[in-house]
Amino acid sequence: MRQSWIEKRKNDSVRTQLHYARAGIITEEMQAVANVEGLSEELIRSEVARGRLVIPANIHHLSLSPMGIGVAARTKINANIGSSSLASCIEEEIEKTLVSIKYGADTIMDLSTGGDLDAIRCAVIEHSSVPIGTVPIYQILHDVQGDIKNLTIDSMLEVMERQARQGVSYFTIHCGFLLEHLPKVAKRKMGIVSRGGSLMASYMMHYHKQNPFYEAFDEILAICREYDVTLSLGDSLRPGCLADASDEAQLAELKVLGELTLRAWEKDVQVMIEGPGHVPMNQIERNVKLQKELCHEAPFYVLGPLVTDIAAGYDHIASAIGAAIAAWKGVAMLCYVTPKEHLGLPNAKDVREGILAYKIAAHAADIARGRIGARDRDDAMSDARYAFDWNRQFELALDPDRAKEYHDESLPQEVFKEAKFCSMCGPKFCSYKISQEIVSKHASGESLT
Amino acid sequence: MRQSWIEKRKNDSVRTQLHYARAGIITEEMQAVANVEGLSEELIRSEVARGRLVIPANIHHLSLSPMGIGVAARTKINANIGSSSLASCIEEEIEKTLVSIKYGADTIMDLSTGGDLDAIRCAVIEHSSVPIGTVPIYQILHDVQGDIKNLTIDSMLEVMERQARQGVSYFTIHCGFLLEHLPKVAKRKMGIVSRGGSLMASYMMHYHKQNPFYEAFDEILAICREYDVTLSLGDSLRPGCLADASDEAQLAELKVLGELTLRAWEKDVQVMIEGPGHVPMNQIERNVKLQKELCHEAPFYVLGPLVTDIAAGYDHIASAIGAAIAAWKGVAMLCYVTPKEHLGLPNAKDVREGILAYKIAAHAADIARGRIGARDRDDAMSDARYAFDWNRQFELALDPDRAKEYHDESLPQEVFKEAKFCSMCGPKFCSYKISQEIVSKHASGESLT
Repeated sequence: MRQSWIEKRKNDSVRTQLHYARAGIITEEMQAVANVEGLSEELIRSEVARGRLVIPANIHHLSLSPMGIGVAARTKINANIGSSSLASCIEEEIEKTLVSIKYGADTIMDLSTGGDLDAIRCAVIEHSSVPIGTVPIYQILHDVQGDIKNLTIDSMLEVMERQARQGVSYFTIHCGFLLEHLPKVAKRKMGIVSRGGSLMASYMMHYHKQNPFYEAFDEILAICREYDVTLSLGDSLRPGCLADASDEAQLAELKVLGELTLRAWEKDVQVMIEGPGHVPMNQIERNVKLQKELCHEAPFYVLGPLVTDIAAGYDHIASAIGAAIAAWKGVAMLCYVTPKEHLGLPNAKDVREGILAYKIAAHAADIARGRIGARDRDDAMSDARYAFDWNRQFELALDPDRAKEYHDESLPQEVFKEAKFCSMCGPKFCSYKISQEIVSKHASGESLT
Repeated sequence: MRQSWIEKRKNDSVRTQLHYARAGIITEEMQAVANVEGLSEELIRSEVARGRLVIPANIHHLSLSPMGIGVAARTKINANIGSSSLASCIEEEIEKTLVSIKYGADTIMDLSTGGDLDAIRCAVIEHSSVPIGTVPIYQILHDVQGDIKNLTIDSMLEVMERQARQGVSYFTIHCGFLLEHLPKVAKRKMGIVSRGGSLMASYMMHYHKQNPFYEAFDEILAICREYDVTLSLGDSLRPGCLADASDEAQLAELKVLGELTLRAWEKDVQVMIEGPGHVPMNQIERNVKLQKELCHEAPFYVLGPLVTDIAAGYDHIASAIGAAIAAWKGVAMLCYVTPKEHLGLPNAKDVREGILAYKIAAHAADIARGRIGARDRDDAMSDARYAFDWNRQFELALDPDRAKEYHDESLPQEVFKEAKFCSMCGPKFCSYKISQEIVSKHASGESLT
């Protein structure tokens, strides 16, 4: 389907969604987004034109179902997958891709750092109907034999061009972390916790030279403009613990990201901004407001944030709390965190747990910010509960398999799918039954008092 | 220890903590609470006297370690355990009690409705160092052959007296739900979802008589005053879905609970107020403010709240989001929800998952409301992370066993406990290592820029 959309644009000199939106053209991608979001096509176009909504849709990812990231749209979630040098297997990454899509990831980032990176990435893109993002520095480093000191701007651009050609829809690049920010890092409790950011620090410290992604920003924009790769401006200096949250280092980088946003927009390149990380609940809203102000309302895409540092093994929960508040206050996409965060590489089971925690956070935020229709599925669930329609309840749950599995743990027999109780209270204590009596008496005109 | 404290008070006519606090006396229980909270004894006494903090401590629960519930104190969490007619086993309930205490429940409610209720309760109290709460109506119903129409005020009081004698430290009673509230229930999407509340509705509808707990409130106060049982005024009309949140029915009952609070305080009986339930994020703060206003700042004890209705199988997460916000905004104790909510009776494994989600919520709230020292453990964790001290990280985690288990899944060998990386990024991509280089260069006076 997308093939024909792209085909007819082949003679256009610029083919980014931002370019078309600014020219007043509603693309098929914008129509598709308007359709799934229940919004008008013109609203989508104007939000894209304004830079408040991005549609990450590389022109080479033909199997993509277009989706939008921005406050006008439903809150989105991203699932990170990818190999590491200690665990790399292409089948495992395909499995994680499929699990991510099954449970509702809106985008997937392939963060592989081990194994055959091109083969893994191509397999992931091929199996994905959602946009794939990457952090190109991982492959760049790989291509310079793992030594960041060998990095050259040419090698950087070659990798980014290659990934763009493969169909990557957004790049996280750590271009806002500058040489002059290094002393601010030294003041921190936990320094740099972004892998890409720490590589930039290594390079800058070794050569006493400026960040190469910042230096080559125009050339990077040219690649993004050609394939319509959205830039996800990375937060190298995101706080790695509550103690470092909202500090000077973090905010100094955010300011640079705001400047780079304007430069990208000048070239019709779509932009979103990445955010923390580890932030106490009472600082989340402030972080969102600052980002909007400093980055001209480009969509904010945050990792969590974790609201405590001591939840290892349960960081999907600690971060879903922060994520729900962040999205309620105006974040457009949430990057999930799995139960393995801080402990190891997630497997497919962890991916499922992480995604579900984030589906909950995103959905709760859409309800809290009063998005039209956001509560419809909740209301349908309440009706199914009240009607003791167990199969319908499973169907409406964010994870139907899990809901059914837990219910069946104590009442596996098929007859209980229509039972007017569950094992929690048993048949005698079911409050719904009594409520229904009240309603029916009331309806029949009988006095209740 | 507590035996001698109680012993020397044997000739006092009233032995509730509230009575002593008002008389200007600092009890050993208040000292113990001051000690664990890091607050002054006089502050604890004055908060108890004001009714803003309760110390649920039945004079017959001698193995109890006193704890306080109120905004001045650390946010507390409660774990519900208990049998149902479909699953009742005394050993299972003891196991749940021990698991609850191991993972950090501050109080436990025994909500058993099946099996030998007295035997289960006595076993739970005997095995518990934390206060045990109950919902007496479950046993009252059991004693009148499961037919609420047979309920008499004498039978009610007999059960409550018996439970008080056994050492129950707080009673949830559904005394604020009145006959005149019934028509408001008929307007709801989900009616009544409180088991106790629905039983009261049955009784009131059948006899067209007022709520018997409301009628016998003075007699109930006499029992509570004798044993120092704290009253936890139940919210029979808590919303069972987002659609019913903050509605007329809920608020009408809350107002009555405020009136009953004053009556209890007159008799030196400690009180806390129970709250919802299912509440969208944007209504949580308003609910807390209303409760404080209508109930004279008696501690608020809420169930969740769940911030979406469609998370069956993951309701511990959906509700931990609401719980964290609620506690941040002034709730004193959080009643946990397990992954089995809406699906079945939780087992010991579910109890652990529920408790951990709530430990996270409570702790995150203490940090957000700026409680002194709340972040100390987080800071220690960050230091351990930065130092690659894996064993110390496990130790500082809210669930050390889980953290270690997840870490060891990919790197089980003992040598990796001192490894300067984990399986997430592998050795080459570890950002902490690079950060440490920056700090050491900075410390040695070398220019970073």
